[in-house]
Amino acid sequence: MNQMINKDTQLCMSLSGRPGNFGTRFHNYLYQKLNLNFIYKAFTTKDLKAAIGGVRALGIRGCAVSMPFKEDCIPYLDELDISASAIQSVNTIVNTDGYLKAYNTDYIAIANLIKSNQINPDTHFVLKGSGGMAKAVAGALFDAGFKHGTILARNKDKGTELAKLYNYQWIASEEEYDLSKVQMIINVTPVGMAGGAEEHDLAFPELWIKQAKIVFDVVALPVETPMIKLAKSLNKKVITGAEVIAIQALEQFVLYTGIRPDAKLIDEAAAFARSN
Amino acid sequence: MNQMINKDTQLCMSLSGRPGNFGTRFHNYLYQKLNLNFIYKAFTTKDLKAAIGGVRALGIRGCAVSMPFKEDCIPYLDELDISASAIQSVNTIVNTDGYLKAYNTDYIAIANLIKSNQINPDTHFVLKGSGGMAKAVAGALFDAGFKHGTILARNKDKGTELAKLYNYQWIASEEEYDLSKVQMIINVTPVGMAGGAEEHDLAFPELWIKQAKIVFDVVALPVETPMIKLAKSLNKKVITGAEVIAIQALEQFVLYTGIRPDAKLIDEAAAFARSN
Repeated sequence: MNQMINKDTQLCMSLSGRPGNFGTRFHNYLYQKLNLNFIYKAFTTKDLKAAIGGVRALGIRGCAVSMPFKEDCIPYLDELDISASAIQSVNTIVNTDGYLKAYNTDYIAIANLIKSNQINPDTHFVLKGSGGMAKAVAGALFDAGFKHGTILARNKDKGTELAKLYNYQWIASEEEYDLSKVQMIINVTPVGMAGGAEEHDLAFPELWIKQAKIVFDVVALPVETPMIKLAKSLNKKVITGAEVIAIQALEQFVLYTGIRPDAKLIDEAAAFARSN
Repeated sequence: MNQMINKDTQLCMSLSGRPGNFGTRFHNYLYQKLNLNFIYKAFTTKDLKAAIGGVRALGIRGCAVSMPFKEDCIPYLDELDISASAIQSVNTIVNTDGYLKAYNTDYIAIANLIKSNQINPDTHFVLKGSGGMAKAVAGALFDAGFKHGTILARNKDKGTELAKLYNYQWIASEEEYDLSKVQMIINVTPVGMAGGAEEHDLAFPELWIKQAKIVFDVVALPVETPMIKLAKSLNKKVITGAEVIAIQALEQFVLYTGIRPDAKLIDEAAAFARSN
C-alpha cells in the first residue's frame, strides 16, 4: 500500500474535450518520485461553468485546461497572469483558498524555448496554424520582439484575426511566400501527429525545410515528426513539441506544488509520460 | 509505479465538514486489492451547491456525504432512494452520466444489523441522540416494525421533533425512564468516542447497561467504547459502530462499483481503514 491517499492528499486535474494521459502520467510520476501527497486525474465536462465552480468549491489545487475550454473558462476565473492575459487563453488554473488565478504555460514554455535557443528576434518566421496554441506561439514570439512574422492559415477569418493581433502578415498558402526568405518555420497544426490523418506528412514543403535555418514543430507525439526527422538529417536547429509539452507541464507542476524538480527527473517524467 | 492513475480512472469522494481517513482508506484498499481503476479522496467545502455541481459536471462517480451536509445537499440532487427519502437525510450520491441519485447507507447498515441480529421488533429501546445519525437509526427501527421507542435528548426541540416523526416518546434524561423497562439501549452521541471530551465515559448509566439485553453503540472509534466493553464483560448482545461504519462503507462501495467483495476482504479493508 505505497502512496496511499489520505485526507490531506491534494488533487490536481485537467479539463479537456478528450482527456489524454500525458499530464496524468507526468504529474503522478513526479509526485511519487518526490514523495508529494498529491494525485492528478484527467476530467472532461459538458458544463464548464459548474466544473470550474467545482474546482473552486472542492479546493482542487490545480487544473490544466485544454481544447476546447482555453478561452471559454476565462469568465469563471478571478485573475489572469500576464502569460494568459497577453493571449486571452488559459491552460492552467491555480486555486489558492478558493481564489482562481490562471496562467498559460504553453506561452511560458515557448518563451523559454525562444530564449534558451537564442533565436534572434530579427528572424523572419512563418507560423502555420490559427488555433489557441498558434495564439500562444505567436504571442510569445511577439513579446520576445519578433517583428517579421507571417501567419499561414487556410481559414481566412481566423488567420487574419491572429495576424492582426500582433501586426503580422497573413497568407493562405505557401505559394504566397517567397521561398528564398524562409528562415524559421513553425508548425502548429496536427500534421505529423501520431494517429492523425496526416501522420506521415511533412507540415511544410520539403523545399521550405531545406531552406529554413530553424524548424519548430509543436506536435509532441511522436517526439520526431516527419518534419523534425528531415530537419535533423539536414542539421537544422530544431525545437520540438516534446520540449514544449514537457516544459509547459513542468511549469504547471511548479505552480501547483512550489517545487522545481531537477532536469534529470523532469526528463525521466516526460519520457515516462510519453511512453503510453 | 503500480496502480498508476490514467485517463480512465474513476474518482469517488466524500464531502464533510471535517474529512477523516476511514472512507479514503477503506475504498482505496478495496480498489487496490480488486485491481479496480478507481481512486477515492476526501474533500470539504464552503459552497455545497457548487461542490455538488462539480461532482455532476466532472463525472465524479460517487460522493459520500457527512456532517453537516446530509440534509442541505438534497435540493441539488435528482432522485432520493427510499433509504434517503424515508429519513430525508443523504450520505451517498451516485452519479450516472450526470444524474445524481442519493442513498443513505447508514440507514441500510442499521436495517441490516437489526435483521442479522434478529432483534424482536417488540423490544423497547431508548435511543440517545437527536442528530442526523439518530434519525437514520430511529427510521430504520421504525421501518423494521419497532413501536416502543424512546428518544433521549437534552435538546427538547430536536428530541421531540425526532420522536414525533416515528410516534416515539421523548425524554430529556434517564431519570424520566423506568429502569426496570430497559431492554435495548442505543448510543448515537459522541460519548465514548476516541479523542472526544467524554472518551472515557459510559454513554448510559452502568445500571442501564446491566439491565439491558442489547447494547448498541454507533460510535465507531474505538471499536470497543467503554459502554461496549462493559456490555461485553456482562455477556450482553452488542452491536458496534465499527459494524455500522464498515457496512455503510461497503454498501457505498457496491453502489459505486457494482462489485460486492467477500466477507474476508471487507473485514480486512475495515481493519485497515481503522488502523489510522
